[in-house]
Amino acid sequence: MRIGVLTGGGDCPGLNAVIRAVVRKGIEVHGWEVLGFRNGWLGPLEGLAKPIGLDDVEDILARGGTILGSSRTNPYKEENGPARIKAVLAEHGVDALVAIGGEDTLGVARRLTDEGVNVVGVPKTIDNDLAATDYTFGFDTAVHIATEAIDRLRTTAESHHRALVVEVMGRHAGWIALHSGLAGGANVILVPEKPFDVRRVVELVQRRFERQYAPIIVVAEGAMPADGAEVLQTGEKDAFGHVRLGGVGTWLADEIAHRTGKESRAVVLGHVQRGGTPTAYDRVLATRFGLHAVDAVHEGDFGVMVALRGTDIVRVKLAEATAELKTVPLARYAEAEVFFG
Amino acid sequence: MRIGVLTGGGDCPGLNAVIRAVVRKGIEVHGWEVLGFRNGWLGPLEGLAKPIGLDDVEDILARGGTILGSSRTNPYKEENGPARIKAVLAEHGVDALVAIGGEDTLGVARRLTDEGVNVVGVPKTIDNDLAATDYTFGFDTAVHIATEAIDRLRTTAESHHRALVVEVMGRHAGWIALHSGLAGGANVILVPEKPFDVRRVVELVQRRFERQYAPIIVVAEGAMPADGAEVLQTGEKDAFGHVRLGGVGTWLADEIAHRTGKESRAVVLGHVQRGGTPTAYDRVLATRFGLHAVDAVHEGDFGVMVALRGTDIVRVKLAEATAELKTVPLARYAEAEVFFG
Amino acid sequence: MRIGVLTGGGDCPGLNAVIRAVVRKGIEVHGWEVLGFRNGWLGPLEGLAKPIGLDDVEDILARGGTILGSSRTNPYKEENGPARIKAVLAEHGVDALVAIGGEDTLGVARRLTDEGVNVVGVPKTIDNDLAATDYTFGFDTAVHIATEAIDRLRTTAESHHRALVVEVMGRHAGWIALHSGLAGGANVILVPEKPFDVRRVVELVQRRFERQYAPIIVVAEGAMPADGAEVLQTGEKDAFGHVRLGGVGTWLADEIAHRTGKESRAVVLGHVQRGGTPTAYDRVLATRFGLHAVDAVHEGDFGVMVALRGTDIVRVKLAEATAELKTVPLARYAEAEVFFG
Amino acid sequence: MRIGVLTGGGDCPGLNAVIRAVVRKGIEVHGWEVLGFRNGWLGPLEGLAKPIGLDDVEDILARGGTILGSSRTNPYKEENGPARIKAVLAEHGVDALVAIGGEDTLGVARRLTDEGVNVVGVPKTIDNDLAATDYTFGFDTAVHIATEAIDRLRTTAESHHRALVVEVMGRHAGWIALHSGLAGGANVILVPEKPFDVRRVVELVQRRFERQYAPIIVVAEGAMPADGAEVLQTGEKDAFGHVRLGGVGTWLADEIAHRTGKESRAVVLGHVQRGGTPTAYDRVLATRFGLHAVDAVHEGDFGVMVALRGTDIVRVKLAEATAELKTVPLARYAEAEVFFG
Repeated sequence: MRIGVLTGGGDCPGLNAVIRAVVRKGIEVHGWEVLGFRNGWLGPLEGLAKPIGLDDVEDILARGGTILGSSRTNPYKEENGPARIKAVLAEHGVDALVAIGGEDTLGVARRLTDEGVNVVGVPKTIDNDLAATDYTFGFDTAVHIATEAIDRLRTTAESHHRALVVEVMGRHAGWIALHSGLAGGANVILVPEKPFDVRRVVELVQRRFERQYAPIIVVAEGAMPADGAEVLQTGEKDAFGHVRLGGVGTWLADEIAHRTGKESRAVVLGHVQRGGTPTAYDRVLATRFGLHAVDAVHEGDFGVMVALRGTDIVRVKLAEATAELKTVPLARYAEAEVFFG
Repeated sequence: MRIGVLTGGGDCPGLNAVIRAVVRKGIEVHGWEVLGFRNGWLGPLEGLAKPIGLDDVEDILARGGTILGSSRTNPYKEENGPARIKAVLAEHGVDALVAIGGEDTLGVARRLTDEGVNVVGVPKTIDNDLAATDYTFGFDTAVHIATEAIDRLRTTAESHHRALVVEVMGRHAGWIALHSGLAGGANVILVPEKPFDVRRVVELVQRRFERQYAPIIVVAEGAMPADGAEVLQTGEKDAFGHVRLGGVGTWLADEIAHRTGKESRAVVLGHVQRGGTPTAYDRVLATRFGLHAVDAVHEGDFGVMVALRGTDIVRVKLAEATAELKTVPLARYAEAEVFFG
Repeated sequence: MRIGVLTGGGDCPGLNAVIRAVVRKGIEVHGWEVLGFRNGWLGPLEGLAKPIGLDDVEDILARGGTILGSSRTNPYKEENGPARIKAVLAEHGVDALVAIGGEDTLGVARRLTDEGVNVVGVPKTIDNDLAATDYTFGFDTAVHIATEAIDRLRTTAESHHRALVVEVMGRHAGWIALHSGLAGGANVILVPEKPFDVRRVVELVQRRFERQYAPIIVVAEGAMPADGAEVLQTGEKDAFGHVRLGGVGTWLADEIAHRTGKESRAVVLGHVQRGGTPTAYDRVLATRFGLHAVDAVHEGDFGVMVALRGTDIVRVKLAEATAELKTVPLARYAEAEVFFG
Repeated sequence: MRIGVLTGGGDCPGLNAVIRAVVRKGIEVHGWEVLGFRNGWLGPLEGLAKPIGLDDVEDILARGGTILGSSRTNPYKEENGPARIKAVLAEHGVDALVAIGGEDTLGVARRLTDEGVNVVGVPKTIDNDLAATDYTFGFDTAVHIATEAIDRLRTTAESHHRALVVEVMGRHAGWIALHSGLAGGANVILVPEKPFDVRRVVELVQRRFERQYAPIIVVAEGAMPADGAEVLQTGEKDAFGHVRLGGVGTWLADEIAHRTGKESRAVVLGHVQRGGTPTAYDRVLATRFGLHAVDAVHEGDFGVMVALRGTDIVRVKLAEATAELKTVPLARYAEAEVFFG
């Protein structure tokens, strides 16, 4: 038996750990051959593949990135994409695919399944915003990095008597902001799930200053003011065609400065959150995902995605898995408000 | 209303995060007074208490240890212990207690509950061996530290062409060994749940050397050879009255050296695993435990312990909570064997 | 004898280590009393002082910030500033001052020395741009943090096929850019000492992409294009009154995107570089500075600053010490060019 | 022109950074070919060599170990060793060698130089005990790791009311103990340069306990009691043929326990100190060493070793360089005593 493996979408610590687990279990337990496809769906589309052996995965567990490369190629946007993929898989004698990726990558996996391709999905979203799984790998690493940054910023904020606004990832879900904000002891946390009242933020900031401390505000990049003020997001182009660094974070730092008369600065953590070596937590989760994906392949259980439920790895239908976004429940957010101000 | 809080047992990263959460929510949400009892159950036994305010917990979230001190004092081994505790609580006007600790501390909490004291427990075991909860705080930090060590040891093992045996915590349960071994890419993992055949370990070590790599063996301090060989444990006294450093780890390193003719060394991580700043994961978990303990107090739901189930914090009866040890299921251990050799 | 100690200027990891060393040696070796003045020169100006004992410095070695607080107050800009300081020192019976700070703080120290105040200076500049000393504490920590960030960004740049421009501190000297760029394996490093030709940068970026890698460009915030293009700096206000996040870094990322057609993003590390726990290197250096400052006080050698030369701590006249900026020599910069592209 | 490069002796973070710098500068600046010899002097002895190109060193800067492998082979102990080396170098057309290693490796380099082989040395000693250079790479990493461990142990010592003895590397010189002890705020530091009086250590430990803190004692593995008590060292075999884990550290922990009646434990950091990713400081130093070694080769200046003096890289004759051990001066040690107790 021969299986293929590919990684799609953006960088996420833990991808190599999944690949390693798939290769180890595929070869050592089942005696399969494992073919690595390059650059996401581009690989099976254009036949970019080569065998991966035990030595290839010997030293990759702790390394960021993906040894297979990645892309955002969608075969359903390419001429005869699905047909070409099936032809390539047939040509290479690939019996099943393990596709590691986010919403887009798994969406393709789901559609290919419907067309008879044997696919098992492994979910990857650094934002942790997938309803079907308790956690996804990469998230813990992002939270770890953001928390380390907040730890460091605290003394700087105090020394400079400044408000510091830390903008973290999270366009549609505030999990990174919530967890790193809780872990870093943020004095305000803002998430996309709950539009914020800038006056309330300013009150909390002022209360903090009055208590003789400097405030740290953690804001998800997708958080938005409730009054509908237009805020450019990080990565968007402004009126001059410049890629914007700092969206709601810089906007809020300005507002705080104007409304309090105190100095206020934004820190935008950006890409630092999604690269490099994964935490132990993410390595274990990614490894278990890889092992269980191989189990699904072995049992011929295709069209599914592995997922974490409690301490168990389970399988869910790809169709259900990609249907729903997991956002921060307002009750979870309310819990964190205890620490505001 | 006035509540008391105490921490018992050994060091565990996250204790201060629990205390902070209890104080913040108690004061900010409920307007309670919070009394900190010193040194575990010794505090309520001898009336060692003082109020904790918001400023006292301002800067403790990221700090190891416990601002309340700890001890292993068991009031049921002291004359009139329980009665004295009740008297002290009455004298200080304490309506309820939040007790943070392990098996012993929570066992006392359970018995005091039966005698009418209002207690809510927060579980603390760095070994993660409590059946009632998916995870306990401190565990992720221990795994993180052990994994960092294994990462570093890998290049040393290779450069010196040596087998390295890393002894980690875990007297009765192998969770730290399993997780750090998986995360660090260990070539053999040994846990108390499954007595090991030293010949099998040696085979794996030799296979590893034959593949031109150096083996890293992660062994829980409570792992034992299947043939019943007597192995002194770390911390026990040897025939000369010396406290032993390195039990099964040093024993195994010797065995490997003798049986393979290769150099072999033990590294005993020891106390490093249980101190210092908690990981972001542990800070969030500890914080949530503290918040939910306050909820239980607020609702008058005593004799319970907070616990993690999936992503939810739930409550379990103290009586059930402390009844069962959570060991590594053999199926979980078998998964890891894919990476051996 | 009674001495005072104060910290002025911006946050810099290691300040508390200096304070601790001064207190320990002052009390334990010489039996002095040590008075801590709050908030830089504001302390002796307004008599904000209290005794510091051994217990106060017990736990501060590893902590960022300064237990004394800081400010940018310049007594020479206050009415009768110097006279008021002398009066406060006399009133509190302070025989000598240890002043820890940067150019401004030490400039005041120098002028007060001329007026008969007994001052010993301890240099503090995170930018390492003081000619009189080989290194200053805080610099190694900043380089460490920037290097960790670059390590993480590398896999992200590769996975996203993007150029990443990392803007680090260094308005007048490029030491942090040079060292973190070398340590992180940057593909281009730009420093204030050498205006850069943007076409040359683009060539190197393109060469890098042609080699199938993604380029990382490390740029000091004070680096400037050679053609005199106007670039707003981080922290300056733009035409709309908004505080700018990202100066030359965002500008350059835009230029690279426009000129290469490749995606390009800026990451601005900002305040993260100057806060939090110091590296071991900085703790040792700061500690030794503190110890030697006490020696100078003990010997009555005032108007001097401690400095590192090789592995020795020496003293230099404050007048000379603050005269000259230490910039990156072009030969040192040229060395690094070996790694460009 | 063609040069060879090799690495000898034990693991030391920074080896790959030297190799990378040699390869980059050799190829990019001088257009040389670079040949990597495997496993120290075994490589040129047995002709184990292959070309190293830019791609081979692309990703190694941050990685521990050495891509060339290492060994302790001494060609002067092999039959016709030096002659065989000369023959291999001639056969491969190697004009000059860059030899990276410690005392033994550089001793061979010196003797080969006398026999007409063109060698430039790069010093490598994690113990920092080479008189000819201010610092060697690997040392800062070792100190960093030991300091992190001490930071963590502090809260554990306090929580458990125990004395903790931390045994660090340093058989002949106490640099790692001194620096990590200073950086970690150790309460006693013991070095090989000054035999210690165990009663004095016990006094300091007791003083510490009386101050209501728990003592941390950092001891170099080569430190010895002044009364001549025999202490087995880590790595030596005991009477039963077992490799000893913990020498003076475990011995001292026992002594403290017996003499104070307090609990006392040893932690032996061991191999963790010498592997894994180097600190930024070590990466920069190792890189500069590599660059300057190439300069020496380019200028035909053989029989020398690169060394750090202040902030400059200089060259010293191999003959002088390896002559003298750099131990901790007693005055430096005395400075640290301020923090004892």
